[in-house]
Amino acid sequence: MQYRTDLAMERVTDGISIPGVRMENASLGDFSRNIVTIETDEAARQLQKAKGRYITFHTQPLKTLDAVAIGEFSKLIAGSLKHLLPPEGDILIVGLGNRRITSDALGSKVTDAVLVTRHLKDVLPQSLFGRLRGVCALSPGVLGVTGMETKDIVRGAVMHAKPAAVIAVDALAARECSRIGTTVQLSDTGIQPGSGVGNHRQGLTFETLGVPVISVGVPLVVYTSVIVRDALHLLLSDMEESADEKEAAADSLSRRITAEELGEMVVTPREIDELVTSLSNLLALSLNTALQPGLSEEEITMLTHETL
Amino acid sequence: MQYRTDLAMERVTDGISIPGVRMENASLGDFSRNIVTIETDEAARQLQKAKGRYITFHTQPLKTLDAVAIGEFSKLIAGSLKHLLPPEGDILIVGLGNRRITSDALGSKVTDAVLVTRHLKDVLPQSLFGRLRGVCALSPGVLGVTGMETKDIVRGAVMHAKPAAVIAVDALAARECSRIGTTVQLSDTGIQPGSGVGNHRQGLTFETLGVPVISVGVPLVVYTSVIVRDALHLLLSDMEESADEKEAAADSLSRRITAEELGEMVVTPREIDELVTSLSNLLALSLNTALQPGLSEEEITMLTHETL
Amino acid sequence: MQYRTDLAMERVTDGISIPGVRMENASLGDFSRNIVTIETDEAARQLQKAKGRYITFHTQPLKTLDAVAIGEFSKLIAGSLKHLLPPEGDILIVGLGNRRITSDALGSKVTDAVLVTRHLKDVLPQSLFGRLRGVCALSPGVLGVTGMETKDIVRGAVMHAKPAAVIAVDALAARECSRIGTTVQLSDTGIQPGSGVGNHRQGLTFETLGVPVISVGVPLVVYTSVIVRDALHLLLSDMEESADEKEAAADSLSRRITAEELGEMVVTPREIDELVTSLSNLLALSLNTALQPGLSEEEITMLTHETL
Amino acid sequence: MQYRTDLAMERVTDGISIPGVRMENASLGDFSRNIVTIETDEAARQLQKAKGRYITFHTQPLKTLDAVAIGEFSKLIAGSLKHLLPPEGDILIVGLGNRRITSDALGSKVTDAVLVTRHLKDVLPQSLFGRLRGVCALSPGVLGVTGMETKDIVRGAVMHAKPAAVIAVDALAARECSRIGTTVQLSDTGIQPGSGVGNHRQGLTFETLGVPVISVGVPLVVYTSVIVRDALHLLLSDMEESADEKEAAADSLSRRITAEELGEMVVTPREIDELVTSLSNLLALSLNTALQPGLSEEEITMLTHETL
Repeated sequence: MQYRTDLAMERVTDGISIPGVRMENASLGDFSRNIVTIETDEAARQLQKAKGRYITFHTQPLKTLDAVAIGEFSKLIAGSLKHLLPPEGDILIVGLGNRRITSDALGSKVTDAVLVTRHLKDVLPQSLFGRLRGVCALSPGVLGVTGMETKDIVRGAVMHAKPAAVIAVDALAARECSRIGTTVQLSDTGIQPGSGVGNHRQGLTFETLGVPVISVGVPLVVYTSVIVRDALHLLLSDMEESADEKEAAADSLSRRITAEELGEMVVTPREIDELVTSLSNLLALSLNTALQPGLSEEEITMLTHETL
Repeated sequence: MQYRTDLAMERVTDGISIPGVRMENASLGDFSRNIVTIETDEAARQLQKAKGRYITFHTQPLKTLDAVAIGEFSKLIAGSLKHLLPPEGDILIVGLGNRRITSDALGSKVTDAVLVTRHLKDVLPQSLFGRLRGVCALSPGVLGVTGMETKDIVRGAVMHAKPAAVIAVDALAARECSRIGTTVQLSDTGIQPGSGVGNHRQGLTFETLGVPVISVGVPLVVYTSVIVRDALHLLLSDMEESADEKEAAADSLSRRITAEELGEMVVTPREIDELVTSLSNLLALSLNTALQPGLSEEEITMLTHETL
Repeated sequence: MQYRTDLAMERVTDGISIPGVRMENASLGDFSRNIVTIETDEAARQLQKAKGRYITFHTQPLKTLDAVAIGEFSKLIAGSLKHLLPPEGDILIVGLGNRRITSDALGSKVTDAVLVTRHLKDVLPQSLFGRLRGVCALSPGVLGVTGMETKDIVRGAVMHAKPAAVIAVDALAARECSRIGTTVQLSDTGIQPGSGVGNHRQGLTFETLGVPVISVGVPLVVYTSVIVRDALHLLLSDMEESADEKEAAADSLSRRITAEELGEMVVTPREIDELVTSLSNLLALSLNTALQPGLSEEEITMLTHETL
Repeated sequence: MQYRTDLAMERVTDGISIPGVRMENASLGDFSRNIVTIETDEAARQLQKAKGRYITFHTQPLKTLDAVAIGEFSKLIAGSLKHLLPPEGDILIVGLGNRRITSDALGSKVTDAVLVTRHLKDVLPQSLFGRLRGVCALSPGVLGVTGMETKDIVRGAVMHAKPAAVIAVDALAARECSRIGTTVQLSDTGIQPGSGVGNHRQGLTFETLGVPVISVGVPLVVYTSVIVRDALHLLLSDMEESADEKEAAADSLSRRITAEELGEMVVTPREIDELVTSLSNLLALSLNTALQPGLSEEEITMLTHETL
C-alpha cells in the first residue's frame, strides 16, 4: 500500500540508488524510454516489484500527436515488445480489467481492437496464412463480475490454446498525474497480485500460467491519497521544522483524510473516455505491428475488419 | 440449413406427428408454455435437434407488460429452470454471442446483469452466505473475436470452478417474426453446434464439458431467406396449380433471391437495442430467482450492485 | 407507402422512362455514380419525391475497401457535396434519427465525429482560423424522445446560428438489400416528411428552415414487407397464369403477411453496429473534406480531437 | 475560481454567518435536507451564486439503498421539485453536459430516461392524455461538440415548444468527495455561467430564456486542486506556526502543484459509470413523479417504454 503506483520507474525514483537495480534513460526524438532492471530478490522486496525488466515509454499527450507521430510511437513500443516475445508460436492476448468501468476498460478494449488470427487457418489462403502469427485474445472480466479468479480462467484458455506466451494488457495506477495516458510500461514479469486499477488478487505470471507473460500497461488513474500525501511531503520539505514535528503532522493528516473521505477515490482527466479509446487503438496498432511482421498495414486493417 | 430455426417447437409444428416426439401445451394466464420432448435418435435426426426436453414460454411483447406481469413471467421461467438444475452445487452461467453485435449480445448482457456470488465466501457474513448458491459467470466472446473455440474457453473455466452445472444463455434464430423477443426456450440438451445467431462451430454439452448444460435462449432474428421461402409456400398453397409447377417456381426463385442478395441478412425489429436490454434484465431476474431461493428480492438487488 | 424506399434511383428504376425525369450513370473506377433529376411537379408527384437532384454513389462493401480506397470514395462524395453547398458562410450539420437504435443512429454518430469549428474564433490563431469554414452540428433526437418536432428544434438553431445552409444526415430505407451500407445519396431537396428509418413527420427543407438544405443519406434497412412483395412479384412474373389470378393471390398474401406479423420488422445485416460506425467515419471524412478545403488531413485530425 | 464548487451549501459552510443568507437543515429519516436562501445582491456577490433558493438533499451512497429507500428518496426530491414548478403548462427538460464523457453525461442520460409526453396528444385516448402533463426533453450537447452556445439551442426550442418552465439537469463539481453521487441540489435560479462539470460559458436563466428555469444537479467530480488546497489548510491549522509562514507555504505550494500537473484533473469514484446510470434513473423517477401526479407508477413505466 506504501507505493500505490504500478510503474517501476516511479518506485525507483523515490529511492534513488538501490543496490540490485539498474536504470537507463534514452531520449528518442519526441519520445523517451526508461529501462529499470531489478536484479536481486532484495531489490524486488524493497521496491515491491518482481525481478525482471520494466521498459517505459513516454510521450506528449496523445491528442497533441498527429497520425505520423502516433505511428512512430507505436513502432517504438512494437520494437521492444517483439524482443520480449518468443520468436515463434501462438500468442494469447489477455485484456484485464472491467469493461464497464471506463478507467479500467483498457485491457478489454485492446482485445476488441487487436487482429485475431488463430482461427483463420482453415479459412485463409496459405499464401496469406503462412505470413501470419497465430494470435488469440480473451477478456475474462474481473473477479467481482465473474466470481472466478482471472488467473483460473486464463489458465484454462492457456491449456487449450497452448500459446508460446501470454501478453497481459492492463490499466495501471501511477503516482504522478502527468503519467496518465502518456506512459506505456512493458515488462517481462507478468502481472503481480494487487496491481492494476482493478487490483488483481492473484497474478498472471510464468509460475501461475506455465508460459512467459509479458505485461503491457498504461497508467489511467492516480489514487487521491497519493496526491494528498505528496502535497504534504512537498509542503513539509519547504518548511524549517524539526523532522519529528513534520512527520507527526503529515502522518496524522494523511490518515485522517484518507480514512474519512478519499478511500476509493481516484484522480483522472475528465476526458478519460476519449483517452481510453485513443490508447486502445495505439496499443492494438503496436501489438499488430509486433505480432504480424509479415503483413502490411493495409492487410492488417482489412483482416481486422473481416474477423469481427 | 433446412430449418434455420433454433426453436424445437417450430420444427415440430412443421412436421405434425413425428414418432418419438411428445408435445404438450399449457395456457398459464397471460402466458403459454410448450414442452417438446424428443425421445428417440431417429426423431432427433429428423428434426436436427438433440434428444431431450425443450420448454418454451411465450408472452405478449415485453413493452406491453407492466412490472407485475414481468415479475410473474420471470417466476414462471425460474420455476422450470430450477427443475432442470441439480439441487446443489455451484453454477457457471455462460453468456454466448458477440457483445458488439446488438442482436447477438443477449448472452453477455445477461452475465453482466446476473448476481455473481461464488467469490463472496470470504467477504460476506456466514448468516448471508449460508443462504447463497455459488454462482459464477463468463462471457467468453465468439470465435472471430477470440480466435478460440468457445467450448475450449468454457472447458477451462469448468475445470477450475468445478460447477455442478452450466447454464448457457444465447440469442436464437426463429422462423416466425412474431417469436422475436416474446419466446424463451429452456432445454436440458445444452447448445448444439451451428445454433444461435452467432452460429457456434462446436457445442456446449454434457459430452464436451463433463457437467449438465442447461440452455436458455430467446429468438432475436429471423433469416430473411426463411421469410421469403415461407411467403412463397403460402402463396403456392393458395393457388390451383399442379404440384410440379409449384415446386419448380418456388425452388428456382428461392435459390435466386437467397444467393443473389439475402445471404447474411436478418430480420429484426427496429427497436432491437431496447429489446435486448429488456430481455437481459428479464432473464437475469429469472436466473437470480431460480438460483437464490434463500434471498429476498431486496437482498438480490443490493448484492448485485455491490458486486460490480 | 407504395415505395418504402428513400432512394430516388430505386423509384425511377421501377418506372423506366418517366417524362420530367433525367437519369445519368457514370462508372468511376471502383465506384459508380447515378444522378436523378426530377424536373416537373408531375414527375415529383408520380415518384413521391421532391423536385431536385439526387446524386447517388455506390461502392463495394466498406469492409472490403482498404484505407486508400476509403479515402478515394470519401473524396468523390466530398466533391459533389461541395458543389451543392453555397461557396461561403457557416454550415449547420444536423444528425437525424435516434442514437439509441443502431440502424437509426447514423446521423448522430456523424455529428459526433465531424469537425466543429464555429466556436473557435476566439480561441484559434487567425493564421489557422482564417482557413476554416465555420461549422456547427446538432443531433436533436427524434419526436418520440424529445416530444418536439425535429423541424422545430432545428429552426431554433438556424435562427441563432444563422448558417448559409444546413446539411441533414440520415439513415434511409432501401428496396434492395444490396444497397445497405453501400450507397450514399446526396440531394439538394432536403429531408421530406415520412422519409428515413425513423420516419420524420415533418420535413427539413428550404421552405421550413429558410436556408438551403442538403441531405446526405445511407440506406441501412429494407422493410420486410418489401422483400416479401418483391419475392411474390418475381414469382408471379415467372408463372403462366392469368393476370387476374396473379393479382388476387399476391394481394391477399401480401396483406395477410404484412398485417399479421411483419409490421415493423426490418431487414439488416447482422453486423449493423460495426457498419454504422464505419459509415459515420466515412461521412465525417467526406464532410470535413468538403467543408475545410483550407486544411490538411493532419490539421483536421488534430482539431477534431481538440474540440471534444 | 476561488470556490470550485457548484453547491450553494458548501459555499455557505465556508463563511458561516453571512448577512442576507438564510440556512435551514432538516433530518428526514435516512435522508437530510438543507435549504440555503440567498436574499441580497451583496450576499450573492460574496458567494458568487445567484439570488434564490437552493434545496439540497443528501443520502447514503445509492448502492447501499434498496428499492424502497430509493423510491422514498425520489419522492422527497419530487415533492420539492413540484413546489418549484408552475402548477400548469408544458415543461421542457434540458439535459446539459457531454454524453461522451461519463462524469458529464448525467443530463443527457436523464433526458433519455424521462417520460416524454408532449407529442402524444394525437395518439393517446383522452382518458389517459387528460391526466398527463405535457413534457418535452432536449439534450443539446456542449459547445465543443455543437459549436453553438447551449443557451442559443435551448432558446430556439423554448420559442417553438412554449413551455411554462424549463428544468435543467446537470452534473456538478463539489468541494468534498463525500458529496459525489450522494447529494441532489434543486434551485430556482437556473444554471449560471461557469458552473457544471462542463463549465457552461453562458447561463440558462429566466433572463436568457424568458421562462422560469429550475435546475437539478448532482456533484460527480471534485477538482483535484481543491483536494490539495483543503489538505494544506487542514495541515496548517494543526501546526503552531506564524500565520505569515503558513500562508506563504500554502500559497506557493498550491500554485506550483496546480499549475504544473493537476490542471484539468478531477477526482471521481472508480465506479463513476455505474453511479451515473443509477443517478439518472433516480432523477428520471423523481421528475416523472413530480410531473405526472395523475399517473400511477405502472402507467409511467409502460408509457416510458412505448415512447422510445
